Amino acid sequence: MRLTSTALLFLLFLLVLISCNALAFKPQLLGRHTVQTFSHHRPLSYTTFYFDQQIDHFGFLENGTFKQRYLLNDQHWHKEGGPILFYTGNEGDITWFCNNTGFMWDIAEELGAMLVFAEHRYYGESMPFGDESYSNAKYLNYLTSEQALADFAVLIKALKQTVPGAQESAVIAIGGSYGGMLAAWLRMKYPSAVVGALAASAPIWQFIVPCEEFYRVVTHDFTISGTNCSSNIRRSWASIDRVSATGEGLQWLSQEFGLCGPLKSQDDVFGFKGWLQETWVNLAMVDYPYEANFLQPLPAWPVKVVCRNLQFDTGVSDKQLLSGISQAVRVYYNYTGDAVCLNTSQTATGDLGILGWFYQSCTEMVMPMCTDGIVDMFEPEPWNFQAFSDMCYNQFGVRPREDWAEIVYGGRNISAHSNIIFSNGNLDPWMSGGVTKSLSKSLVAIMIDGGAHHLDLRYYNEFDPESVIKTRELEVNYFKQWIKSAAFD
Amino acid sequence: MRLTSTALLFLLFLLVLISCNALAFKPQLLGRHTVQTFSHHRPLSYTTFYFDQQIDHFGFLENGTFKQRYLLNDQHWHKEGGPILFYTGNEGDITWFCNNTGFMWDIAEELGAMLVFAEHRYYGESMPFGDESYSNAKYLNYLTSEQALADFAVLIKALKQTVPGAQESAVIAIGGSYGGMLAAWLRMKYPSAVVGALAASAPIWQFIVPCEEFYRVVTHDFTISGTNCSSNIRRSWASIDRVSATGEGLQWLSQEFGLCGPLKSQDDVFGFKGWLQETWVNLAMVDYPYEANFLQPLPAWPVKVVCRNLQFDTGVSDKQLLSGISQAVRVYYNYTGDAVCLNTSQTATGDLGILGWFYQSCTEMVMPMCTDGIVDMFEPEPWNFQAFSDMCYNQFGVRPREDWAEIVYGGRNISAHSNIIFSNGNLDPWMSGGVTKSLSKSLVAIMIDGGAHHLDLRYYNEFDPESVIKTRELEVNYFKQWIKSAAFD
Repeated sequence: MRLTSTALLFLLFLLVLISCNALAFKPQLLGRHTVQTFSHHRPLSYTTFYFDQQIDHFGFLENGTFKQRYLLNDQHWHKEGGPILFYTGNEGDITWFCNNTGFMWDIAEELGAMLVFAEHRYYGESMPFGDESYSNAKYLNYLTSEQALADFAVLIKALKQTVPGAQESAVIAIGGSYGGMLAAWLRMKYPSAVVGALAASAPIWQFIVPCEEFYRVVTHDFTISGTNCSSNIRRSWASIDRVSATGEGLQWLSQEFGLCGPLKSQDDVFGFKGWLQETWVNLAMVDYPYEANFLQPLPAWPVKVVCRNLQFDTGVSDKQLLSGISQAVRVYYNYTGDAVCLNTSQTATGDLGILGWFYQSCTEMVMPMCTDGIVDMFEPEPWNFQAFSDMCYNQFGVRPREDWAEIVYGGRNISAHSNIIFSNGNLDPWMSGGVTKSLSKSLVAIMIDGGAHHLDLRYYNEFDPESVIKTRELEVNYFKQWIKSAAFD
Repeated sequence: MRLTSTALLFLLFLLVLISCNALAFKPQLLGRHTVQTFSHHRPLSYTTFYFDQQIDHFGFLENGTFKQRYLLNDQHWHKEGGPILFYTGNEGDITWFCNNTGFMWDIAEELGAMLVFAEHRYYGESMPFGDESYSNAKYLNYLTSEQALADFAVLIKALKQTVPGAQESAVIAIGGSYGGMLAAWLRMKYPSAVVGALAASAPIWQFIVPCEEFYRVVTHDFTISGTNCSSNIRRSWASIDRVSATGEGLQWLSQEFGLCGPLKSQDDVFGFKGWLQETWVNLAMVDYPYEANFLQPLPAWPVKVVCRNLQFDTGVSDKQLLSGISQAVRVYYNYTGDAVCLNTSQTATGDLGILGWFYQSCTEMVMPMCTDGIVDMFEPEPWNFQAFSDMCYNQFGVRPREDWAEIVYGGRNISAHSNIIFSNGNLDPWMSGGVTKSLSKSLVAIMIDGGAHHLDLRYYNEFDPESVIKTRELEVNYFKQWIKSAAFD
């Protein structure tokens, strides 16, 4: 059974987590002050807290609680009624999201805002059953977006009740990617908790868009970033098949790509192709206009840099083409020049974040994806819900509910809601499931020309394109409007 | 431990269920056509269906399903896009609500509407674990309003997908009492499922209003319905204490009230007083302007009739006063003259509906109530959350979460929502927790002068006061607006 794409789709969101382990730390149970310094940026300073949350908000038999971690900075907060910018944590360690959401830090002073970064249950340190949380299906049962949203709503209520001066504070939800979906849904399901939401690169419609859309956007990025770029990637799969058909070819491939573990079988080749596909996807996601270190240290406009190695015309030989692919891949895995070899199992770690997202994909976050090799540059692979469901059952003992996300979060019929900004970058594959056209005066879509995955949530940068500068201005203006309206409610 | 009021509050909603058993029937698993005839009304005709619902919408470990019953009438439905009026079933047998919501039957033709009455899980025939559903805490764990709302949203989606012509139909939620709360919440939480909601006599704020409000309204009804009426009821409790202090007095009381089981102890007297208190509450709820049989067969304006027996001035003796109370009570329990004796344990049956609402009160539907004997006509009893919680724990092994309903349903901060009519009668004790002032152009409160518990949902009647006639006109006008707007979405 081939499940390249389906296996991939668990990882896409999660890849952003790999680098976060280095930042993990063990704070005390009481608030603990942390200062972290990142290159090019002022030190981040926040206090870490832990809040007692119900393990099960929607049933009363399980009455246990767990410690939900959240980070708080009130250095710029106007203590009587200043707003709270509330980051709705996604599938990973919250300190990593905190450090990668520079936008909130950049605007805190202008808004007189408190910053809160709330960790999503089952990620980072917020484990409902401690180290056992992922040990069996029974403990995993409380890992859902609905429970996470309830956590956020309960925490917001508690902050307003307990932080002196916060009672009248307008709270704005902010999140990116899955965290952006949560920000939008928090406003949709708990509008009494937040006056509005910024949902950056939030593919809330990925459940219902045609399955080919995601990879079509990935392909488009490569098409526009260099002559013949996507067509050479499309042709590379057959080249790999032909070259890897012989033992000599397998050896050549392993050497040419500098793989840490040489390819020995067709199974290895299958995994190698999946690793390449994932690499192209990641490159599209982080195609930022300046040198950055999000998933990997990368040059400015990395897809363009990659494509410089893939300009061959149709006369190229298989090995020439694959040498180009090898050079291209190194832009992603070895921009620093420090990599001794390339590890094709790099993303298949036992990282809890990945396992958690895998579980969420296997329950409610069912995002169909497929490729056909025509509108996209990948090998054809249809969406196979039954195979996917069987895999989930084997892995977790649960089956995904295909229609649930659309029912619970309204599908395309969300115009009854208000005060949500959906920002998307036109380079970001996830915009395929995003809200890219405004639905009403207060459900606003912003397209960021030349923007990759939630570029607007990153720190200001001297190489920011005009589009993202304007986007952030617009976002702050909406925040101010919402805060002002809330004051008159 | 005294818990008269708290014990009562489980029953208040539920009393309306007692008469419904007579209507229960066992349809086939396929749709079965039923015709029922009620006095003064045309025969009701509907088909009974059963829909496979997830037992747990919010977790994936429990993947079982159960048969949710719903009743459907499409006799007047305009088959291409005509609206669906969807009754959000409350805590009881849906056939009973179907038969007691004449308003929907009265307006079906004018609106060209399909009528659907959906049963609430754990009531009537919609038992998630069959006869075992109430047998233990584990099985009861899925009895929550959130699960019920999800049932409704899933069922609506399925109806639209499977009933030919219904795909574009605008759905309007309609409900009364707890069913009215569910109608409002369905619009709030699943606005993609319903274009609007009529929440009749829906005390969505009963969780957060001062605990004395409910009994204050009950008292007010008696105060305005006859000279000295509420003050004589207020004085009756001490009269009962004095008379019941002797064996002779107990015997006299038992005979005077024609009790089926004579009072033998102070515990019996305590129960007797609770039964009286409940009787006054019920009378206030069903103080309809015409002869009706809702909870009991009653004359028009039953509270006025009751009060005719309670006009004594302060010179009255204890026994004279209690004789008056006895006559007053018989208006409620023996209007037909058929009762051989009065049964003070009448409402303490093992009816599943009552047990279900008891469980819901013990988990999320925490409605604090209290009396002080000053602003109300009852014996003073403070609200004691801890005692209540302990009782719940002893009964079900669960503890109520005091703040949850406010967080999940937004408390008073619901102005972000739209298209909800909150109708209340100024005689109905439940208006104390209702929305009685409009919150925006599309969150509309309607007060029905001289209206008891969801009078507007009853059949048209020649003795309807002008207020309820106008209310229903207004409601139908809003329905038409919502349907029209939905067509342009």
